[in-house]
Amino acid sequence: MATQTSQTSPQPSTKDTGLRGVLIADTAISLIDGVKGELSYRGFDIHDLAAYSTSEEVAYLLLYGDLPTASQAEEFSKNLAAQRKLPPSIVDVMKRIPIATAPMDVLQATVALLAESDSEKHSDSKDANLNRAARLTALVPIIVAFWDRIRKNQPLIESDAKLGRAANFLYMLNGEVPDEETAKDFDTCLVLQAEHSFNASTFAARVVASTRAHMYAAVSAAVGSLSGELHGGANMQVMRNLVEIGDPGKVDAWVKAKFDNHERVMGMGHAVYKALDPRADLLSHISEKLARRTGDPKWYLMTKEIEVATQREYRTRKGGEIYPNVDLYSASVYHMLGIPDDLFTPIFAVARIPGWVAHIIEEKFPALPIKPELYRPSAQYQGNYCGVIGCKYVPLVKRTATNQPVTS
Amino acid sequence: MATQTSQTSPQPSTKDTGLRGVLIADTAISLIDGVKGELSYRGFDIHDLAAYSTSEEVAYLLLYGDLPTASQAEEFSKNLAAQRKLPPSIVDVMKRIPIATAPMDVLQATVALLAESDSEKHSDSKDANLNRAARLTALVPIIVAFWDRIRKNQPLIESDAKLGRAANFLYMLNGEVPDEETAKDFDTCLVLQAEHSFNASTFAARVVASTRAHMYAAVSAAVGSLSGELHGGANMQVMRNLVEIGDPGKVDAWVKAKFDNHERVMGMGHAVYKALDPRADLLSHISEKLARRTGDPKWYLMTKEIEVATQREYRTRKGGEIYPNVDLYSASVYHMLGIPDDLFTPIFAVARIPGWVAHIIEEKFPALPIKPELYRPSAQYQGNYCGVIGCKYVPLVKRTATNQPVTS
Repeated sequence: MATQTSQTSPQPSTKDTGLRGVLIADTAISLIDGVKGELSYRGFDIHDLAAYSTSEEVAYLLLYGDLPTASQAEEFSKNLAAQRKLPPSIVDVMKRIPIATAPMDVLQATVALLAESDSEKHSDSKDANLNRAARLTALVPIIVAFWDRIRKNQPLIESDAKLGRAANFLYMLNGEVPDEETAKDFDTCLVLQAEHSFNASTFAARVVASTRAHMYAAVSAAVGSLSGELHGGANMQVMRNLVEIGDPGKVDAWVKAKFDNHERVMGMGHAVYKALDPRADLLSHISEKLARRTGDPKWYLMTKEIEVATQREYRTRKGGEIYPNVDLYSASVYHMLGIPDDLFTPIFAVARIPGWVAHIIEEKFPALPIKPELYRPSAQYQGNYCGVIGCKYVPLVKRTATNQPVTS
Repeated sequence: MATQTSQTSPQPSTKDTGLRGVLIADTAISLIDGVKGELSYRGFDIHDLAAYSTSEEVAYLLLYGDLPTASQAEEFSKNLAAQRKLPPSIVDVMKRIPIATAPMDVLQATVALLAESDSEKHSDSKDANLNRAARLTALVPIIVAFWDRIRKNQPLIESDAKLGRAANFLYMLNGEVPDEETAKDFDTCLVLQAEHSFNASTFAARVVASTRAHMYAAVSAAVGSLSGELHGGANMQVMRNLVEIGDPGKVDAWVKAKFDNHERVMGMGHAVYKALDPRADLLSHISEKLARRTGDPKWYLMTKEIEVATQREYRTRKGGEIYPNVDLYSASVYHMLGIPDDLFTPIFAVARIPGWVAHIIEEKFPALPIKPELYRPSAQYQGNYCGVIGCKYVPLVKRTATNQPVTS
C-alpha cells in the first residue's frame, strides 16, 4: 500500500506508541514516576496526601498550586458546600431522560448543559475559570447522586452543607449519613484518584480547552473519554469479573483461562507505571480494612488472588512483572461501600474532576506560553485502493456495478 | 524553575508545536497537502467532489472508503432518510432545556443521550458502528434544526424523506423547501467541510474512542472541541466581525486596528495550510454567486476586502503570505442562506459528522494495528514553588498564615 505524508519535510513519528512517552506540554500539576512507582500532586507525595489531607484540601492544592492556609481552607470548603445546588431546570431535564440511560452518558450530557446557568458565562478570565472549577467540583457529585435516585424513582436528597465532600455524596446517594470511618475511607479514594497527569480523559479535556471551548465542554469530553473500558470503565469491568468468578478459590482457573484466550486481565498493568502503582497499594489497604469492617472478606480476597495469580501467569508465560492498577482495588472498595457497579466509573469522575479542571486552567493560562494554542497532530496517509491520491471521479451512472477499483 | 521528567530515558518532545507535524497514527480517510493547498477524501480531490458529488455520496465515501454504485447510493440515501427521526423521549428532554442554552451545548448534550436508544447499543462491532455512523449523520442535523425551533417557540417540522440531506435540513430549520440552487449550494458547503484529517475536534473524537468509549461519547466530545473559537467557533466570530464592520469601506481601517492591537483576524491563516485552502477558494465562489442571487453584495464584498487587506498588512508588517481559511467565506455564505449566526458552528458539525464517524471507526478498527490502544502522552514536569518534588506536608494548624513556600 502506497503511503504519502502531507508535508515534504521529514516529520517526527510517534504513531507506533499512541503518544506514550512523548512530551507534548509543560505541566506543574502532578508528576508520575512510572519506574519508581511514585506519584505527587504539586510536589506533595500521594502517601502524605492520602494519610493526612482531605479531598477538599487536595482540590484546592490542585487548583491553586499550594496547600491552603486555615482561612483559605475554610473559605474554599464553604464555597464548595454553597455551590452544591443544581439549577432546578437541569434537574427537570434529568427527570425526562430515559431511565435506562447509562450514568456516564447522563453525566456527559448534563455537564455540557450546566454552561448556560454559569453566572459568569460570558467571561473566560482566570478568575471566572477558577469559580467554574469550584462549581463543577461541587456539582459533578450531585449529578451522579441525583441520577441514581431519579432512575430508581427515589426522592431526591438535598445537599447537607455540614458534611464534607465525601460524606455528603454518600448521603445524597444512599439517604444515610455514613459513619466517620466510611466517610474517611471514601474521601481517601477521592484523594487517590483526583489527578493523574495526561491520561486519556485529561488529555481529551485539554484538547477541547485548547480550542478555547469553555470548561463545561472540556469536562463533558473528559467524561466521555473516561467512560471507555480501557480507562475509567475498567473498574466496572473488574467488578463484573469479581461477580462472575464468585469465589476466591475459582480465581486461579479464571486467570489461566484469560491467558489461554489471550485476553486482558482488567485491573492489571498500566500505560505509565512499570512498578507498583502507589494508588493501588493504598487502595488495597482500604479494601482489606473494609473487608474486616463489613465481615465479608470475599471481595478483597478475590482481588488479592487476581493480583497474585496474574503476576504468576505473567512471569511464567511472558517473563517480567505486571502490577495491579488503580481499578483493581477500587472495584472491591466501592462495592463494599454499597455503591452499584455502574456508578463506579461516574465515581471515578467525581474523584477526578479537580484534576480535570486544574488541567483545563493550565491549558488556558499556561505559565510558560511556548505551546501554540490548539492541538493539531498529523497522520501518515495510507493510500486507499486507487493508489495514493488522484482517483478519478466517475459519475454515478457510469460506475461499475461490481464497484471495482477505479484507477486514474 | 527546576524541571524533571517522569522517566529516566530521553523522551521525544513536541511541546513547542502543539503536535503540529507530528505523525501520531495512520489514516486512509483524507490527505491535506498544506504546501500545495490540496485536499482529497479517500483519494478524490475536493474540487471534483464539490463539482460533481453530493453530501450523501461523500458521507458514503468517507465511511466505506469508496464511491457507491447506483444501488449502494440509493440504499444508503434511503437508510439516511429513514433514520431521520429523533426518539420522542429525546425531543421531550430538549424541550426542557433552558432556551438560552447555546446550540453547541445542546448538541454536545443531546448526542451523548442518543446512546440509550441505539438499537444495537450492546455491540461495538464494525457493523454496529457503521449503522451508528449513519444514524448520527442523519440525527445531528435534526437536533440542530429542532433546537432552533424549540428555542424560538416554533412548531417542530418533521423530516421529508423525499428531500436530500441539505434541502431537508433547511426545510426543517426554516419551514420552507429551498429552491434547487440554494439546496445545491448548501450541499456543496456540507461536502467541503465533511472531513479534514486530524483537526482538534476529530482528534478529540479519536482520543475518546481510543479508550473504547462508544461513538456517541466520542462525537459529543468532538462537538465540544468544535465549539471553541479557534476551531469551529471561528465562523461565528467572522460573522460578528462583519456585522461590527458594517460596510466594505470600513474594512481597511478595521484590519489595520487589529494589527495595531496585535489581535488575530479571524478567518485568516491556518495551522496546516501554508497556501490557499481549497475550501476557502470554493466557498468564495459560492459567496459571490449568492451575493448576485440575493442582490445584496455587501457581505461578500466585506469578506473579500478582509482577505485583501489582511494579506496587504501581513506582507507589510510581518513579511510573507497569509491565506483565508474555511471560516472566512462560510460566514457570509451561511448568512446569505438565512441562517442565524449562532447556528454557524452547529452547521459546521452537521457538515463534519461524516468525517468524525469515519475517524472513530478507523480508530476502533485500524487497518494496520500498530498503534497501541489509548492515547496517553507525557508532559514535562515544571516543579512548583517548593522545588521539584518532595514538598513536606505540614498539618493545617501549623501552616503559616502568609502561605509562604514550605521547602522540604
